[in-house]
Amino acid sequence: MNYSSIDLSVKAGIATITFTRPESYNSMDFVMAKELFDCAIRLTTDDQVRAIVLTGQGEHAFCAGGDVSAFAADPDSAQPLLREMTGYLHSAISRLAWGDAPVLAAVNGVAAGAGLSFVGACDLAFASEKATFVSAYTSIGLTPDASSTFYLPRIIGMRRTMELAITGRVLSAQEALDWGLVNRVTPADEVLKVTYAMAEKLAAGPTKAYGGVKRLLLQSFNEPLESQLERESREISAAADRVDGREGIRAFTEKRRPSFKGS
Amino acid sequence: MNYSSIDLSVKAGIATITFTRPESYNSMDFVMAKELFDCAIRLTTDDQVRAIVLTGQGEHAFCAGGDVSAFAADPDSAQPLLREMTGYLHSAISRLAWGDAPVLAAVNGVAAGAGLSFVGACDLAFASEKATFVSAYTSIGLTPDASSTFYLPRIIGMRRTMELAITGRVLSAQEALDWGLVNRVTPADEVLKVTYAMAEKLAAGPTKAYGGVKRLLLQSFNEPLESQLERESREISAAADRVDGREGIRAFTEKRRPSFKGS
Amino acid sequence: MNYSSIDLSVKAGIATITFTRPESYNSMDFVMAKELFDCAIRLTTDDQVRAIVLTGQGEHAFCAGGDVSAFAADPDSAQPLLREMTGYLHSAISRLAWGDAPVLAAVNGVAAGAGLSFVGACDLAFASEKATFVSAYTSIGLTPDASSTFYLPRIIGMRRTMELAITGRVLSAQEALDWGLVNRVTPADEVLKVTYAMAEKLAAGPTKAYGGVKRLLLQSFNEPLESQLERESREISAAADRVDGREGIRAFTEKRRPSFKGS
Repeated sequence: MNYSSIDLSVKAGIATITFTRPESYNSMDFVMAKELFDCAIRLTTDDQVRAIVLTGQGEHAFCAGGDVSAFAADPDSAQPLLREMTGYLHSAISRLAWGDAPVLAAVNGVAAGAGLSFVGACDLAFASEKATFVSAYTSIGLTPDASSTFYLPRIIGMRRTMELAITGRVLSAQEALDWGLVNRVTPADEVLKVTYAMAEKLAAGPTKAYGGVKRLLLQSFNEPLESQLERESREISAAADRVDGREGIRAFTEKRRPSFKGS
Repeated sequence: MNYSSIDLSVKAGIATITFTRPESYNSMDFVMAKELFDCAIRLTTDDQVRAIVLTGQGEHAFCAGGDVSAFAADPDSAQPLLREMTGYLHSAISRLAWGDAPVLAAVNGVAAGAGLSFVGACDLAFASEKATFVSAYTSIGLTPDASSTFYLPRIIGMRRTMELAITGRVLSAQEALDWGLVNRVTPADEVLKVTYAMAEKLAAGPTKAYGGVKRLLLQSFNEPLESQLERESREISAAADRVDGREGIRAFTEKRRPSFKGS
Repeated sequence: MNYSSIDLSVKAGIATITFTRPESYNSMDFVMAKELFDCAIRLTTDDQVRAIVLTGQGEHAFCAGGDVSAFAADPDSAQPLLREMTGYLHSAISRLAWGDAPVLAAVNGVAAGAGLSFVGACDLAFASEKATFVSAYTSIGLTPDASSTFYLPRIIGMRRTMELAITGRVLSAQEALDWGLVNRVTPADEVLKVTYAMAEKLAAGPTKAYGGVKRLLLQSFNEPLESQLERESREISAAADRVDGREGIRAFTEKRRPSFKGS
C-alpha cells in the first residue's frame, strides 16, 4: 500500500481512499490516476470490503481536478498524457461502479473538474456546508472527463449539467443538495462523521444486494422497460436464495433486525 | 371479475384497480400478481377504458410490497416463487405502460417495495399528505423489482433512487412532491376525489394521443435524438388524421372546447 | 437572408434568430419550419458564429406552437403537412444540437407546443418572469413534436414531462426555474440583456470545447458507462491539443484570463 498521491486504509469492512495532495488542492496527477486504478482493482476483488469512503486531505479541497501544471509543462505531450491518464482513471471508475460495495463521497471542500466527476460517480455524497462544486473544464478550453457526462445528466438532468459545464457556475453545498447532487449537507467538521455513520450501516448490510442495485441503476437508462424488468426479476430471485436474502426474509417475519454477512 | 386480492370496477370509462388485502397492508401475494396481469390484459384490450386508477383499500396502505411471509414459509422455494411472481407482475406493468389509457396512482397510505415501484410505473401520482414512500428491498436483503429501477431514475434521478434503494430513507408526501415523484399532495380524505377529478378529465380526452405520448416517453431515453424526432413526426402526423385530432384542430379554430371520442 | 417568418442577424459572433409572427403569437407555420432549417445549416457551417440566441418578437410570445389554422384549412392534408413540416423543423433541431455554438433561449413570453419544445432543445434558457410554459399538443388531440419528448424527460424527468403533456398544466417562470427547465428568471424587460450577457461570454469562449460538451451530453443517456468514458477521453485529449486548449492550460498556469479563438 505504498501510494504517494492517495492513501488507502481498510478498517472493519470500510475502505477509505484519501486524495493526499493538499498542497495542490488534491489535484489529480498521473500518479494519482494510476494509484486509483490499482486501488480500485484491489478493493473490488476483496470480499471483506463492504463500503468505500472517498475524501480529500486537508480543510480546503476534496479534489480540485486535473493537475494542470503537468499539462502545461510540455504542451505537445498534453494530448497523449491525458489519453494515458484517463486510461487509468476511467478504468478505476468503471471498476468501482461494477463492484458490490457502495462508494460514499465525503466532500470536505472544493470539488472541481475531475473532483466534481467523482462526486457524481460515487453512489452517495455527503458534503460539508463549505464545499463548492464547479466544472472547470471549459474554463481552460477542455471538455469533461472522469464520467461526469455520464453521471451528472442522470443525477441533475441535462440542462443543469450543461449550465455547470459551459458557464463556470459555482454551486454551493446547499444548491447541490437542492439539485439532488449530494444527499446531505453537514456542518464543516462533521462531514466525515456523518459519512462514516452511513458507511458503517452499509458495511453491515447485504453487500451483494447493494451490488445488484448498483448494476441495475448503472444500466437503467440503456435498457428498454422489458429487459430492465427481466434483469430485476433475475436479480431479486437470486438475492432471495443468498445467505443474506434468506436471513433478511426470516428476520422480517420474526420481527427482528437481520444480521447480514455480505454474502 | 372474481378477483380476491384486488378489486376491479369500471364506470364511465374509468377503471379502478384496488389492492384489497388491507389486513396485510395490501401486500403483494402470488394471487395479486396473477390477478393484476389478467386485469392489465383486459383493460388494455378494452377501448371503453380511457383512464385507470390504482389505489389501496383502507386508511393505512397503498401497497406495502411483497408478501414476505410467503417467501419465508419455504426458504428454498423463495427463488422460484419470486421468478414466477415477477413473470406475472412484470407483464402486467408492461401491458399498462404500452396501453393508451393513462394510469393514475391514488396513494392513500404507505407505498413500500413493489408499492413504491407502482407509484413510479403509473403515469401520474396523487398522494395523501399521510402517504409515505420507502424502498424496503435491501432492508431484507433483496433487490428492487416491479420496474422501480426503470422508472425511478427517470423520475427522480439516479442518485436519489440510489439513496432510497440502499439507505432505507422514508420519504414524506411533501418530499415526494419536491422530488417530482408525485404530482400533487392532497388532504388525507381527498386523494381519491382529486385523482378521480383528473381521471374524468383524461377519460374525456384524446385517448390515442395519450397513448402516443406514453410510448414516446417510455422509449425516450433509449433513442438517439434523430430517431426520437422521427417517431415524434410519425406520431403527430398520424394523430392529425384521427377523429380526435381532426376534432381538436377544428375546435381550436372555432374557439370552442373539443369533444373527444377516444378514437 | 430574406426570411419572412423569422429574422436572422449576426453580430460579433452572436447570431440571433427571432420568430417574427407576433400577430399570431409567433406560431410556427410551414415557412418558418423551412427557414429555420435553412438558417440552422448556415449557422452551423459558419465558424464565425460562436453563440446563437433564439427569441420571439413582441411582448407576448416566445412561440405559441404550430399554426393550427393551417392544419384546419384542409383537414385531409393536415397529416402530410405535419409530416413535411417536421421534416424541416426536426432537421433544424438536429443541426443546432450537433453544432459547436451554444444555443440560448430568451423566453420573452408564452412558450407553447413547439415553443416549449424549443426551450428544451436550446442549451441554456433564460425566461422573463412573465413567461409561461405549456405543452398544448394533446389539448387539440395531437402528440408532441420538435424534440420535446427527447429533451424534456432528460431535463425535468419523465413524470413532470408526462404531467405537462397530458394534463395541460401551465408552468410559471418560477416553476420552470424550480424544475430546472430554465436556468434563470429575469425581470420582463431584462431577458434579452441577461441572455446576451451570457451569449457574449460564451462567444468569447472555447467554441470547439463547447461543441464537445454538447455532443457528449446529447448522447449520454444512450451510452453505457464505459463507452461514454472512452468518448470523454478522446474528446478531452483532442481538446488539449487545440489552439484554445493550449491557451487555456497556459493561461491557467500563468494565472491570467485565457484568450480563446474558438479554434
